[in-house]
Amino acid sequence: MTKFVYSFDEGNKDMKNLLGGKGANLAEMTEIGLPVPQGFTVTTEACNQYYENHETISEEITIQIFEKLEKLENMSGKKIGDPKNPLLVSVRSGARASMPGMMDTVLNLGLNDQVVEGMIALTNNKRFAYDSYRRFIMMFADVVKGYDKSKFERLLDQIKEEKCVKFDTELTGEDMQEITNRFKEVYRQISNEEFPQDPKEQLIEAIQAVFRSWNNERANVYRKMHNIPYSWGTAVNVQEMVYGNKGENSGTGVAFTRNPATGENKLYGEYLMNAQGEDVVAGVRTPQPISTLKDVMPEIYEQFKQIAKKLEVHYRDMQDMEFTIEDGKLYMLQTRNGKRTAAAALKIAVDLVNSNMISKEEAILKVEPESLDQLLHPNFNQEKLNKDDIIATGLAASPGAGAGKIYFTAEDVSTAKRNGEKCILVRLETSPEDIKGMQDAEAIVTVRGGMTSHAAVVARGMGRCCVCGCDDLVIDEDQKTIKTKTGIMLKEGDYISVDGTTGNVYNGNMETVEPEISGDFETFMNWADEVRNLEVRANADTPTDALHAKKFGAEGIGLCRTEHMFFEENRIFAVRQMITAKTDEQRKMALDKILPMQRSDFAELFRTMDSMPVIIRYLDPPLHEFLPKTDEELKELSASLQMSFEELKDRVEELKEFNPMMGHRGCRLAVTYPEIARMQTRAVIEAAIQVSKENISVKPEIMIPLIGDLRELKYVKELVNEEARKVIDEQNYSIEYQVGTMIEVPRATVIADEIAKEAEFFSFGTNDLTQMTYGFSRDDASKFLNDYYQKKIFENDPFERIDQIGVGALMKLAIEKARTVRPDIELGICGEHGGESSSIEFCHNIGLKYVSCSPFRVPTARLAAAQASIKANQSK
Amino acid sequence: MTKFVYSFDEGNKDMKNLLGGKGANLAEMTEIGLPVPQGFTVTTEACNQYYENHETISEEITIQIFEKLEKLENMSGKKIGDPKNPLLVSVRSGARASMPGMMDTVLNLGLNDQVVEGMIALTNNKRFAYDSYRRFIMMFADVVKGYDKSKFERLLDQIKEEKCVKFDTELTGEDMQEITNRFKEVYRQISNEEFPQDPKEQLIEAIQAVFRSWNNERANVYRKMHNIPYSWGTAVNVQEMVYGNKGENSGTGVAFTRNPATGENKLYGEYLMNAQGEDVVAGVRTPQPISTLKDVMPEIYEQFKQIAKKLEVHYRDMQDMEFTIEDGKLYMLQTRNGKRTAAAALKIAVDLVNSNMISKEEAILKVEPESLDQLLHPNFNQEKLNKDDIIATGLAASPGAGAGKIYFTAEDVSTAKRNGEKCILVRLETSPEDIKGMQDAEAIVTVRGGMTSHAAVVARGMGRCCVCGCDDLVIDEDQKTIKTKTGIMLKEGDYISVDGTTGNVYNGNMETVEPEISGDFETFMNWADEVRNLEVRANADTPTDALHAKKFGAEGIGLCRTEHMFFEENRIFAVRQMITAKTDEQRKMALDKILPMQRSDFAELFRTMDSMPVIIRYLDPPLHEFLPKTDEELKELSASLQMSFEELKDRVEELKEFNPMMGHRGCRLAVTYPEIARMQTRAVIEAAIQVSKENISVKPEIMIPLIGDLRELKYVKELVNEEARKVIDEQNYSIEYQVGTMIEVPRATVIADEIAKEAEFFSFGTNDLTQMTYGFSRDDASKFLNDYYQKKIFENDPFERIDQIGVGALMKLAIEKARTVRPDIELGICGEHGGESSSIEFCHNIGLKYVSCSPFRVPTARLAAAQASIKANQSK
Repeated sequence: MTKFVYSFDEGNKDMKNLLGGKGANLAEMTEIGLPVPQGFTVTTEACNQYYENHETISEEITIQIFEKLEKLENMSGKKIGDPKNPLLVSVRSGARASMPGMMDTVLNLGLNDQVVEGMIALTNNKRFAYDSYRRFIMMFADVVKGYDKSKFERLLDQIKEEKCVKFDTELTGEDMQEITNRFKEVYRQISNEEFPQDPKEQLIEAIQAVFRSWNNERANVYRKMHNIPYSWGTAVNVQEMVYGNKGENSGTGVAFTRNPATGENKLYGEYLMNAQGEDVVAGVRTPQPISTLKDVMPEIYEQFKQIAKKLEVHYRDMQDMEFTIEDGKLYMLQTRNGKRTAAAALKIAVDLVNSNMISKEEAILKVEPESLDQLLHPNFNQEKLNKDDIIATGLAASPGAGAGKIYFTAEDVSTAKRNGEKCILVRLETSPEDIKGMQDAEAIVTVRGGMTSHAAVVARGMGRCCVCGCDDLVIDEDQKTIKTKTGIMLKEGDYISVDGTTGNVYNGNMETVEPEISGDFETFMNWADEVRNLEVRANADTPTDALHAKKFGAEGIGLCRTEHMFFEENRIFAVRQMITAKTDEQRKMALDKILPMQRSDFAELFRTMDSMPVIIRYLDPPLHEFLPKTDEELKELSASLQMSFEELKDRVEELKEFNPMMGHRGCRLAVTYPEIARMQTRAVIEAAIQVSKENISVKPEIMIPLIGDLRELKYVKELVNEEARKVIDEQNYSIEYQVGTMIEVPRATVIADEIAKEAEFFSFGTNDLTQMTYGFSRDDASKFLNDYYQKKIFENDPFERIDQIGVGALMKLAIEKARTVRPDIELGICGEHGGESSSIEFCHNIGLKYVSCSPFRVPTARLAAAQASIKANQSK
Repeated sequence: MTKFVYSFDEGNKDMKNLLGGKGANLAEMTEIGLPVPQGFTVTTEACNQYYENHETISEEITIQIFEKLEKLENMSGKKIGDPKNPLLVSVRSGARASMPGMMDTVLNLGLNDQVVEGMIALTNNKRFAYDSYRRFIMMFADVVKGYDKSKFERLLDQIKEEKCVKFDTELTGEDMQEITNRFKEVYRQISNEEFPQDPKEQLIEAIQAVFRSWNNERANVYRKMHNIPYSWGTAVNVQEMVYGNKGENSGTGVAFTRNPATGENKLYGEYLMNAQGEDVVAGVRTPQPISTLKDVMPEIYEQFKQIAKKLEVHYRDMQDMEFTIEDGKLYMLQTRNGKRTAAAALKIAVDLVNSNMISKEEAILKVEPESLDQLLHPNFNQEKLNKDDIIATGLAASPGAGAGKIYFTAEDVSTAKRNGEKCILVRLETSPEDIKGMQDAEAIVTVRGGMTSHAAVVARGMGRCCVCGCDDLVIDEDQKTIKTKTGIMLKEGDYISVDGTTGNVYNGNMETVEPEISGDFETFMNWADEVRNLEVRANADTPTDALHAKKFGAEGIGLCRTEHMFFEENRIFAVRQMITAKTDEQRKMALDKILPMQRSDFAELFRTMDSMPVIIRYLDPPLHEFLPKTDEELKELSASLQMSFEELKDRVEELKEFNPMMGHRGCRLAVTYPEIARMQTRAVIEAAIQVSKENISVKPEIMIPLIGDLRELKYVKELVNEEARKVIDEQNYSIEYQVGTMIEVPRATVIADEIAKEAEFFSFGTNDLTQMTYGFSRDDASKFLNDYYQKKIFENDPFERIDQIGVGALMKLAIEKARTVRPDIELGICGEHGGESSSIEFCHNIGLKYVSCSPFRVPTARLAAAQASIKANQSK
């Protein structure tokens, strides 16, 4: 028989998966002798069973609950429903990972018409007894039955008006009794039933309600945001009530062992005397800083400080605690590892190591890699933001903050920027030709597109704040206006403020603050670097990007997307000449113009990276991405190309594709236009020779994209080698280089042994590999993936975290096959996943040599790589 | 040391791979004692080495050639270059598969200024000697050196004019000598060198020329057409010359042992006395039917008849032979299995079995499965077609012939058809809404798209003649005109004739002929059915298709694409209502209209297939495919939908996708709009119950497309089961059904064990699987695949023949994994590959239960399946 219910004295902190965080920690605190009101935990497995049973609790579980209830009665000497000595309990959720405020709670359970009278007799406090009862009725109606809470609230207001009082505290015991009776009446009207008087029935219903709240809207959203699997379920904690509102000798509070914002090693928190937890939240009275408790109840304060210290040492981490003082006695209601800012996390980690409380390895595991991002971008002062100014909320695609004037085209942004304005680029979606404008903008907002849309990827790459998929906004690009959901109409030049960390867009011009980076950051990252095995490289397309990347600790360039060098104003024209060329001759003339530009870019890149590896990917996107879209722009271009508009239009038409993602791109371009690959080879090798003559060691790695067949690679590699040999002969200067390939087409994984015969290195392009393995276009999938999340088919965006069982299996297959042919083949990843911590752990485990990610994710990757090494060692 | 050169007496007919077909058969004829001029064969391996060595013959091979040449000299008693007794040879290509006329030949090699004089002395025939020499010079210049042949031809014409003669035969020995000298002069002018006098140099150069011709344009085209791998290479046969032009006692001819057009068991062929092979081809004199040789040279005729008989028995197949008579002596120059029409192939196969010459299994292997297609479609009378009428040539996408008036829209075709006209639908490309017009047309011509474009797939499915990718044509859909490459302008209503078997489009109205199907067809197919293991089902979307399929021997429906039921005029409106619905309610109302139509279609399908399995695939294409494209049509639709044009336009915009192939389609539609899957389930189950009550046993198989994740399938399957249970309960009638899935997304192959937990059957959708495994959009790939063919990166269209090493490996992986979970899972294929013979063999070998293909490919599939069984048994 499965054990579905555990008394607090039967568990411990390592049973989080089964008991949830709250339950495991209540058990642990019980075990180490702290004052904890006793109770029991219904397990997460019971929750899952509840859902499998079409949302009912089985008899087996019910029996176990009542057994533990009886044990609790025996321990407390009280009895549920016994007016003479009644046991009252709280019923609280508690999942494996903490989800503050997302699920439901019922307090004061066990009250009924008899018990309330018994309580009066026991406490001699009618007001307290009926106040508890009316609160319970409302909570039960709201949480358990799902009735409209406002009916009760309105009634309460009405009675206060009748009684001519302003605050609940002014109501008398009689008033409370009247309120209780009228609440029961409302309950009867809504439900056509009496308020349930059987405490056991109340209990089972409340437990079910908590289970149900696991699946409410806000819990689903929270889980998705924090990657918490639905399958974990929540536990339910049933605990004897203690009361902080019994008088001036009672109180309640929350506290952290250290400051969660700064990490300062000082008790931090607040409390209220004569109050229950909900009063603190309600904000009717202002809570006091925890330090002042010293003056009010010095012994209790001292006891609490001792407990806090003990808990921190015991849990080897900063704790977030809840407590209640009932009639001068302290009770601990909760402890957990406290949430903290990235800055605080670093300081705490470093401090704990310095005070010899934890090892460096433990410290490294305590900081969430993704949180480091906060330290790298300016932010709004969250406290000064006003919710009412939010005009739209989209995907927090690239963190940071930016405020400025709205512009609707990349060109307008660039022009305005030249005039000294701060600008926000607002577009339906961005395309590669918007790059310059994106760079010039303070922030980018798009209406369409997901976390891996063009805007998101490029913005993260350049560390530019970006909010994507704001489908609340209606853009009129012709009129240059946006209309918000609430009907606000904004026009070009109006100010908005964009928070890429939360996904919120605000009306108006908010101020940004530069983040403070303490010296702990460097110390901590050095520890991480000591233990990690994975190299961390960056995806960087320009010398500026490369400089950024190096600053953040990148050890090379894992992906230089050469096409990004094509979009600058003075270059795009030559590129367009190349694309519209009618003969090989014309095309070569255009390429001759591009050659010196690419060569000088590569040279600068090699110089910047100073002997570190640099992987250069050859032209990848379909050519139509380089041509303008509107007839107007095309007319302009046709004039400068000395081509008729119709001819140009025909060429554009000819280049159009039904599914460009699976079209004429990648190495397929090199097959059709070998002269492009030749030009790029010449640029790489000439640049390498040039820089090598400056006494910088350079060994460029040339990467051919989208390879799916051995003969494809052979053909392109032969081109590269021929041209490289030519350059080397011309200059009579020897230079080494490697030719490798992206592994991004599923077929390449299946025939990786074949491909490894020719490829000197592999780099997994998991963006495309994910697209093709799933058959999801990342530009379109956001439209239907919401339905997938809602229906629990997917819990994560596979473009954000590597799909380990599908895409990952193909990666493993490729590695296995490749190593049979070339055991020491250099393996890396350069998809967006290379900067996401769960994916990095996977990359470590399958034996990659490096991950490559956008410069701003390099610190995250370094830390995630370190954590992966530590975890792998621990599990050995 | 590798042996690169074989004398004819060292080989045999089983060495085709090494010696080529011609070489192997010359060796075989030598072995069985037939009169064959002796010689030797340079192997296909030598050819491959030639290409690997950057088109040079290695010294090793040269040495071996000269060794065999010496042996030949010894056997013949002649010596190359010896004026007293010169050996002259022919140098001919001979690949593993015969490629008639595709490669080069050099005759009379060994002649030079001395040898020609020696020949005169020997033969006392100056005209013959110089005629041979001047032919050799021209051939050598043309074939070996690649000089412009017309320079020699013009010179010959000029000399004939000077001599006032009309035919070559009127030229004297002196004339020939003069021609020879002037040819040498021309040769000198072009090359700046003397005509090479060293016969050994001539020989090596000629052999290299033949190797080179393996890679000429027409050979490449031919290979691609006949799926002959480039890697096979060609052998070269060097053979002592015999002369059919030595006088009236000499002659040359070609003959088949049976009639290759009809299969009639009677010697069939033609010959010319006093002539060389090239004269027969040149058409200067009209060759005589072979039967008349009986009167001219009765003994030779008798000898030839005996040899023909002997060869047929020896090779166990109809033979295609070349012979020469020199001075009354018969020489065999070639024998090979003769090419034949499908009708002839069937008759010959059946006759050979009936005369106990071969077994049924051998007979089955003799007929090319794809050729059966010829028997199922009307065709033009090829002899009456005039090349000059060809206005365009595209891809022979769906065989058959059709002539009629040009129309540019599907609606116009349908209207004209109702008026009794025969129509040809000409479009840039077709889309699903053109289905009705495609059905109504005699033939379909598209400018864009490849062998698996929409037009091609659908046309083959309905057995409609179709030529795709005619990019010679410029369509103006507004003006309703087409312009051909040569400037001919055709307008709506003009006649064209479309040959889907050759890909030619003709100007004008050609007559079509119904093919004759002899009773051998049935006999033969019955033999095939006896030995095959694979079931053959059909892809059929309507009761009409199903009827066709059954007639051709389909044993069930492997794929019913339900969306094809949506396009009929009276249905598409309800479908559009569904798509544009703003609420679930509106959508359900529209679905309620569609339900009875689908139900009656399914019922009719079940009745037609009468207890055979029927697999029904749920809605697959992205919804935007169902909406009209032009503003005009949208305006019309918006009016009837009682929706504003802007609203409708917005909806169309909303549905647009960047990569629709990887977008919102397949099971993703069922996730977003469960009510569609519910409606389809209701239609299937209600129809099944209805037909089942008519005492026809029905067990529908419901197939969910595009599954990539277990939870996706679980979600949709649950929907299906719920709705099915509802119907079964409502009607209180029990019906069995299965729920399975397409395997068409690479991820599904990787997690096939997971998916098999829920899927009761798998059907490999190799069209999409190929697209996603390669990352090729089949609608776009034709643009760049030509470069792939040209550069020998690809030799086959992976959409036509299964890519066994990539896509096939994923299929095998899926099967292996699925069987661990569900050992008896039903496995089939329903992609276009299911009708292609090499793919069918692969399907047999990996253990599928059935293949499913378009109705007109069912006979091909039955035969291919039989051949696969026989081959697999043979290799056991």
